[in-house]
Amino acid sequence: MKRNLSLLTDFYELTMANGYFSRGEIDEIECFDIFFRKCPDNGGFVIFSGLQSIIDYIKNLHFEDSDIEYLRSLGLFREGFLTYLKNFKFKGTIYSVEEGTPIFPYEPVIRLIGTKLETRLVETMFLLYCNHQSLIATKTNRIVRAANGKKVAEFGARRAQGEDASIAGARAAIVGGAFATANTLAGKLYNILVIGTMSHAWVMSFDNEYESFKAYAEEYPNNTVLLVDTYDTLRSGIPNAIKTAKEVLEPMGKRLKGVRLDSGDLAYLSKQARKMFDDAGMQDCNIFASDGLDEYTITSLENQGSQIGTYCSGERLITSASSPLLGFVDKLSAQKTKDGEFIPKIKLSENPAKITNPGLKKVVRLYDKDNHKAIADVICLVEEEPIDTTKPYKIHDQTHTWKQKEVTNFYTRDLLVPIFIDGECVYNEKTVQEIQDYCLKQVDTLWGEYKRFDNPEIYRVDLSNKLYELKMKMIREKR
Amino acid sequence: MKRNLSLLTDFYELTMANGYFSRGEIDEIECFDIFFRKCPDNGGFVIFSGLQSIIDYIKNLHFEDSDIEYLRSLGLFREGFLTYLKNFKFKGTIYSVEEGTPIFPYEPVIRLIGTKLETRLVETMFLLYCNHQSLIATKTNRIVRAANGKKVAEFGARRAQGEDASIAGARAAIVGGAFATANTLAGKLYNILVIGTMSHAWVMSFDNEYESFKAYAEEYPNNTVLLVDTYDTLRSGIPNAIKTAKEVLEPMGKRLKGVRLDSGDLAYLSKQARKMFDDAGMQDCNIFASDGLDEYTITSLENQGSQIGTYCSGERLITSASSPLLGFVDKLSAQKTKDGEFIPKIKLSENPAKITNPGLKKVVRLYDKDNHKAIADVICLVEEEPIDTTKPYKIHDQTHTWKQKEVTNFYTRDLLVPIFIDGECVYNEKTVQEIQDYCLKQVDTLWGEYKRFDNPEIYRVDLSNKLYELKMKMIREKR
Repeated sequence: MKRNLSLLTDFYELTMANGYFSRGEIDEIECFDIFFRKCPDNGGFVIFSGLQSIIDYIKNLHFEDSDIEYLRSLGLFREGFLTYLKNFKFKGTIYSVEEGTPIFPYEPVIRLIGTKLETRLVETMFLLYCNHQSLIATKTNRIVRAANGKKVAEFGARRAQGEDASIAGARAAIVGGAFATANTLAGKLYNILVIGTMSHAWVMSFDNEYESFKAYAEEYPNNTVLLVDTYDTLRSGIPNAIKTAKEVLEPMGKRLKGVRLDSGDLAYLSKQARKMFDDAGMQDCNIFASDGLDEYTITSLENQGSQIGTYCSGERLITSASSPLLGFVDKLSAQKTKDGEFIPKIKLSENPAKITNPGLKKVVRLYDKDNHKAIADVICLVEEEPIDTTKPYKIHDQTHTWKQKEVTNFYTRDLLVPIFIDGECVYNEKTVQEIQDYCLKQVDTLWGEYKRFDNPEIYRVDLSNKLYELKMKMIREKR
Repeated sequence: MKRNLSLLTDFYELTMANGYFSRGEIDEIECFDIFFRKCPDNGGFVIFSGLQSIIDYIKNLHFEDSDIEYLRSLGLFREGFLTYLKNFKFKGTIYSVEEGTPIFPYEPVIRLIGTKLETRLVETMFLLYCNHQSLIATKTNRIVRAANGKKVAEFGARRAQGEDASIAGARAAIVGGAFATANTLAGKLYNILVIGTMSHAWVMSFDNEYESFKAYAEEYPNNTVLLVDTYDTLRSGIPNAIKTAKEVLEPMGKRLKGVRLDSGDLAYLSKQARKMFDDAGMQDCNIFASDGLDEYTITSLENQGSQIGTYCSGERLITSASSPLLGFVDKLSAQKTKDGEFIPKIKLSENPAKITNPGLKKVVRLYDKDNHKAIADVICLVEEEPIDTTKPYKIHDQTHTWKQKEVTNFYTRDLLVPIFIDGECVYNEKTVQEIQDYCLKQVDTLWGEYKRFDNPEIYRVDLSNKLYELKMKMIREKR
C-alpha cells in the first residue's frame, strides 16, 4: 500500500530548499513548532491525530528517479541539489504529543529539528496529516460525547474527500471514540471493527420487503440488522422486521439484532419502533440510525428521548462538515549556530495572537493529585528545570497577565515525547484501539466546562516565567 | 502509484454481494443511475469530475490474497463467494457524462449496468470519486468565475483532507479552471503547471528582509516572486521588493515577476502596492494574493477595485469549505429478466423529490442554433428515437408540469457516452488541460442567470413524454 509521496509538497518547499543548497547551507539546523490557533466548531480543544502517518511518511521518504527527472524537466533546480535529493534521507529529530491527546491553541504539539532543507521538504505533509486527522478525531469525539454513552459508528466513505480521507478518516474516527466503521479497507489495515448490512437496493431488488428481510436473515442469522425505511417505516418496515424475527430467526433460536432508520423523523420513529419491539418481546432489538447525524442532531435526538442505540454518522463526520478546516501551522522558533547553540527566533505581527513563541520549548500538563483533572498546560523552554511540584505554582492568563492563579497539590506530565532522534524512529507504535483508550481517558481528565459545545470555557495555557521574559525581551528588541 | 483499493467499500456492499451469491443470483443484471440532488453553495450547477479515477479504479479492480484472507477472518462469507472475489473481473457497462460537463440535479450522469454483485462492489468508490472531485471542480469554477478573468491557482495541499484530497483535488481544480497548482506531485502526475516561491520561514531565516529577497532573486532571476508581508507590507516588503528589482534583477536585464500578499487588507494593500510599483516603472510586476480566498472574498476584492493579478486559493478551495459536501447517490432503475428485457424499477418516497426515475435513460442537451446557449436537458428512455430537431419541442417544468415552453431552432447532444462496454474500456482518455478547455467552453454555453451565486435561476431538466408517462403509471400501480 505504500506510495511514494515525496513530491507531495508545496512547490515552494523545493525552491527554498534548492535556494539554501545553492548558498551552501545544507547543514544549518533550524527548529520549527507545529501548533494551531483555533478549534473547529468553536470547541474547547482538539484531539491530536496524524502522528502515525507522519512516522510512516518519514520512514518511506525518498526521491525516485522519476521524481528527479520531473524536477529536472522544470529547469529551475541545480544538479547538485537534485543529487542531494536522490541521496536524501531524513536525519532530523521529532518530538510530538501522542495521538489521542487533547491539545489546545498555541501550544507546540510537534517540535521538529533538522536542516533547513529537510524541515522544508517535510512541512507540507506534516501539516496535511495533522490537519486532516486531528480534524476528524476531534469531530468524532464531539459526536461521541453528544451520544451520551450510546455507540457511534463511522459511515462516511462515499462522501469523504478522496480515498485517504475515507481510510485515514475512519482511523481518526476510531481514535476519537467511534466503536466501528463501515470502511472495509480501514478495518483490514487498522484491525478495527467493520459493520454494515444492507442498502435500499437490496430491499428493492426483491419482490417485496419481507422477502428481502427473510433472505438476509437466512444468510446472516447471527448478525441481522434490517433497513426499515424503504417503503414505510412504521407501517411496513418495523412490522416486517418483527415478522422476520418471529418467523425466520426465532425458530432457529436466533434473535433480531437490530433495525436501521435512515430517513424521516428519527426521534419519533425510534420511539414508536421501540414500543412496537417491546410489545413484541424484542427488548434486545437495537435501533441503529443514520441520516445527517453529527453532535448537533444527536444532542437534539437525545434531548427528545430518542430510543436510538447506535448512531451511524456519515458525511458530517467524515468531512467535519460544520467546520471542515483545521489550521495547523509551523513556525521557525530557533536557529543553531556554528557553536551548537540554539538562537531563539520570533515572528512579529500587528496581530498579537500571531506573534510566535521563541526558542526550543516543551509543554507540561498539570493534573490535580486528588481528582486527576487537568489544571493547565505550561509552555516552558526545554532547558528549564522540571516544575517543582512540592511548591505552589503560579499560572498566568496568557492575554491578561495580571490574572493569576496559584496551583498546589498537583503532578505534571511532559506532553512532547521523542519520535525520531537524528533520523531514527524511537517511538513504540500503538494500536488504534490503544490510542482510543488513551484518548477517552485523557478527555475524562477535562472538566465539563471545556467540553460543552456552546461557548466552552478556555483552558489555561500559560508561558513559564523564563519563556515569557524571553518573548518580551525579543519583542522589545525588534520594535 | 497504484494501490489496491478493492476493499475500499462500505461493508454492506460485501454482505449484500455475498447474499446474492448464496441465492445463486450471480448473473442477474441490474441498472443503476448515479445523480445528485442539490448543488453545493446553492449554486446553479455542478462541474462533473471523477471519471478518470473511476476508469483507473475499474481497470485495477481485483481482490488480492490478503483481502480474501481478511474477509475470511470475519467469518461471515461463503467460501464460494470468496473464490468468486478472487477471480473477480469487472464485466459491466458504464455510460457517463464527460468530465468538465456542467450537470444539474436529478439527471443521471452515470448509467451502470452489471450483475447484482459487481454493481454493489463498485458503488462506494463511484460515489466517492464523483462526490469529491465534482465538489472541488465546481468550487474552483465558482472561484474562477468570481476572479473576472484574473488567474486562479490552487494552493491548498496542507489543508486538504488527506493525501488524495490534495492530489485529486489539485487535478479537479484544474478541471474547474485553475491555471496552476502548488502541489508538486499533482504537477508530475497530471502534467499541470506548478508554481510557488517562498514562505515566511525563508524570509525569517535571513538577517533581514532585503537579504532574503536578494538571495532569492539571485537564485531565480527569471521567476522571482517575493513574499512581502513578513514584517510590514507597505513600509518594508514593497520597498525591499522594488530595491531587489532595481539593484539585483535589472542590472542582470531581468524584471521582478511579482510579489505575494498573504495577510492584511488585500484590497487596500494591492492598490497601494500597484501604485508604488507603477511609480517605480514596474507596471509589469504582478500582484499575487493568498489568505482565505474563495468566490465570496474574491467577489468583494474585485468590487473594491483590488489590483490583484493572480488569486492563490488554498484551504477554502481544496475543502470547498463553505459547502464541503456533494451528495451523489446511486439508485436502482431497472432489472433484466431472463428474456433479456429490462424491467423498470422505481423507489417511492413521501418526499416527491426522492421518487426515482425508472428505466434505462439517456440525457439530451438542447442548444440554440444561433447563439449556442444551452436551452434545457431532457431525460429520455434509451429506447426512444432521437428528438426531432426539425419540429418545435415542448419542454415542461418538472414540478409544475402545466408550465411549458416550446423550443425551435435547436440542436441536441447526448451527454452520456460509452466508457466501458462489457468490461472493456472504450473511452479515449483526455488530458486535464483538454478537460479544462472543454469545461470552460461548456460553462460558456450557460446563460449568466444560471451562473450567479445568489439565487441562480433553475435550469430546466425535463422528462420526455414517454418517461413521464412510465413514471406516473408506476407510481399509480405502486400506491
